[in-house]
Amino acid sequence: MDFFDVIERRYSHKEKFLPTPVPIEHLEKLAIAGLLAPSGANAQSVNLVLLPDREALNPINEIIPHPGLDTAPAAIALLTDSSTQKSVINFEIQDYSAACENIHLAATAMGYGSLWLDYPLFNEAVHDSVLKVLNAPEGFCLRVIIPIGLIDGEGSRREKLPLSTRLHYVRM
Amino acid sequence: MDFFDVIERRYSHKEKFLPTPVPIEHLEKLAIAGLLAPSGANAQSVNLVLLPDREALNPINEIIPHPGLDTAPAAIALLTDSSTQKSVINFEIQDYSAACENIHLAATAMGYGSLWLDYPLFNEAVHDSVLKVLNAPEGFCLRVIIPIGLIDGEGSRREKLPLSTRLHYVRM
Repeated sequence: MDFFDVIERRYSHKEKFLPTPVPIEHLEKLAIAGLLAPSGANAQSVNLVLLPDREALNPINEIIPHPGLDTAPAAIALLTDSSTQKSVINFEIQDYSAACENIHLAATAMGYGSLWLDYPLFNEAVHDSVLKVLNAPEGFCLRVIIPIGLIDGEGSRREKLPLSTRLHYVRM
Repeated sequence: MDFFDVIERRYSHKEKFLPTPVPIEHLEKLAIAGLLAPSGANAQSVNLVLLPDREALNPINEIIPHPGLDTAPAAIALLTDSSTQKSVINFEIQDYSAACENIHLAATAMGYGSLWLDYPLFNEAVHDSVLKVLNAPEGFCLRVIIPIGLIDGEGSRREKLPLSTRLHYVRM
């Protein structure tokens, strides 16, 4: 798909997914796109865990009930490794956000719906429980679960503000 | 350009740019791609300032000397508006990182080099001086300056770690 078509079509799919399985090669292609994103000081803090079916997803879904996660046939868990950060500035949030955006765009390019599901993970108990399911080593932080799957039509999109309120020329 | 070609070609151009001007319509196309990125709670905290020529860039370049900024024919300044954040969780870093990644990918798709230049802005004095040049209202934070321009061949790329160290299946 043409790059700018992908940019325009991407949206956060907060509704149901179709049960059609997502081939593991597709998940790998999405993951590679994510790992090709830039990272602060090239520290490459992002790690991804492929959750290719309901068997892998169910234990996480039990901790995080969400319409997207309830129905998704697959997902990618996005973590950062804090031990990679050697600079005074910690770039983990920038790193995972760029990687996450790449994955969403790649999913759109491949005809999949996807969602940036992070809100429940700001609850420490939820975060730690899912981290345990994923068997993440010490020092890893779980940042996003990205449900992925085919969708039945397109879900609702939230409106963007008028361009003129956010785009400025030379000075604000 | 095909989406996955863009993903593979994008890199951080830390070297010189050619002086060829970047048409304002191209900068606008890059900015629109950035503003189409997702944002936490759809708060759309990201604001962009187009710096279309050296006249606009020089006052910033005087504060931030950098090979990329010294030679770039144009740039985009990426700011966030903290007054947009109504949730307990502040999503400004996630928002600007996703928007910034969209702009870098869009620049690649259009044949431009670009750089995620943020490090100097973590110095408060530098940050505040550039913010003043941009005439940013209270509550805005300058996050990234993105130099943009044609490049002479391709600059050096930093290596990525082997995939197997960052990509996991079901569990880490």
